[in-house]
Amino acid sequence: MNQALKIAYLGPSATYSHEAAIKQFGPDAEFLPMRSIPDVFFATARGEVDYGIVPVENSLEGSVTYTLDMFARPDPELANLTISAELYLPIITNLLVGPNGPQNLADIQLVYSHPQPLAQSRGWLLNNLPHVEFQEVSSTARAAEMALENPRAAAISNRQTAEQYGLRIMAPGIQDADFNQTRFLIIGFQPYEAVAGQNGRATTAIMLSIKDRVGALHAITSIFMKYGLNMNRIESRPSKQKAWDYFFFIDFNGYPSQPNVAEALQELNNETSWVKVLGSWLREI
Amino acid sequence: MNQALKIAYLGPSATYSHEAAIKQFGPDAEFLPMRSIPDVFFATARGEVDYGIVPVENSLEGSVTYTLDMFARPDPELANLTISAELYLPIITNLLVGPNGPQNLADIQLVYSHPQPLAQSRGWLLNNLPHVEFQEVSSTARAAEMALENPRAAAISNRQTAEQYGLRIMAPGIQDADFNQTRFLIIGFQPYEAVAGQNGRATTAIMLSIKDRVGALHAITSIFMKYGLNMNRIESRPSKQKAWDYFFFIDFNGYPSQPNVAEALQELNNETSWVKVLGSWLREI
Repeated sequence: MNQALKIAYLGPSATYSHEAAIKQFGPDAEFLPMRSIPDVFFATARGEVDYGIVPVENSLEGSVTYTLDMFARPDPELANLTISAELYLPIITNLLVGPNGPQNLADIQLVYSHPQPLAQSRGWLLNNLPHVEFQEVSSTARAAEMALENPRAAAISNRQTAEQYGLRIMAPGIQDADFNQTRFLIIGFQPYEAVAGQNGRATTAIMLSIKDRVGALHAITSIFMKYGLNMNRIESRPSKQKAWDYFFFIDFNGYPSQPNVAEALQELNNETSWVKVLGSWLREI
Repeated sequence: MNQALKIAYLGPSATYSHEAAIKQFGPDAEFLPMRSIPDVFFATARGEVDYGIVPVENSLEGSVTYTLDMFARPDPELANLTISAELYLPIITNLLVGPNGPQNLADIQLVYSHPQPLAQSRGWLLNNLPHVEFQEVSSTARAAEMALENPRAAAISNRQTAEQYGLRIMAPGIQDADFNQTRFLIIGFQPYEAVAGQNGRATTAIMLSIKDRVGALHAITSIFMKYGLNMNRIESRPSKQKAWDYFFFIDFNGYPSQPNVAEALQELNNETSWVKVLGSWLREI
């Protein structure tokens, strides 16, 4: 009998992170809700779960800085964590009401949600519920609980929340942008799929600190050009060690055991204060 | 008689933005608190004030994405706004109590603050007030009001808040990182100081959209190298027009009427979908 995989995610139950975890690992894995993104990292690092799943970027809101900053933390127990896979989740928001709640839009006096889905449905809400009060709560799950207690209230959340808390979808897909997605990273101690030989889809993430000098960023991009490596993403974060000092996060096509990638990493090491490989995985899109 | 300059800032009164505005424009300007960063931009664009001041980056927390995203908005009334100057403000946080409040640390049961100063004083708070409850409120000014009403409560904020609301500084400088600063931008319709000829200190900010192709970022950095222009900063934000499409914000040394800058901007225009100059100013540090 197979042991079910244990997965840590940013709780509570029925969040977008939970939805992403189920999409990645299937319904038979065991899913453990964590109170924060750091808790997902530490639970994974301590071996309490096989993998953790964390949001890293939303196509409207940009980077999830809490997640990037965890990779930059100096805690020794986090040092060997690797990015094992990635996952893209379309963000669909719905207007939910309880079984004893409003029967139609005109009955709604109050809408609960987390600030992010609320902001992402702003246009629909202003058009369809112009006189309604909005209240921000700590999670979409909490919004569902609050809506259940108030017969004049609705919540904004995903389909999972409706199913789990017994609410009805009064208006589906009310998000303003139809392209909105969140990218998640799966973290653990080993890759989720083999990347070697997958030249087209293999992606590697590195983090580096640039020596403070003219043209440093150009020197970095020159190395990627020289070895024919396409940078898919570059993002900087404060080092938190001194003011206006940055770490750069770079994703590129390739994997470290490829000869040209190995040589590029060696040159990057010479050119920068330090380089850390965060992991390799098969690109989903 | 001189007309006092009118300045819009992110309110309420006594915030770090207010402190930055006074540092930049002196106490005799007229300061108008706005409810949000977009409101600062729109008040300035409509000519209701001479300048607006907005936070753009904190040395621990990174970019203020609300501010960057305002530069990317397509609203025609915002099109001619320019970055007129920049300002760095050290972020000093203090533990404040009301006149009828706690007499010493042991009397404190509750601490109010905005999430950011609370996070930035976390180490001191855990060491000195380990059993105290923390409550997040919408601004440091609101925290001061709440602390005044509760004889067992303290607030975390700057010196201005203490002076304006009549609180006492029980513990000064409780922020965890002694290098913490916030960079502000002054926006308006004209530069605050003349930049032409200031070759050493002149900085220009541009925003550009990169055509989706291999090596695009390298092509950009190559142009800066070719014309001897040092990039001080590069930041990306989602375009909000389609998924995983980005605008880049770049600061570099120089000003557009310099011949090499003019040529570089022309080449950037050929290499990218579009380039917009956001403004030039004299670098403060």
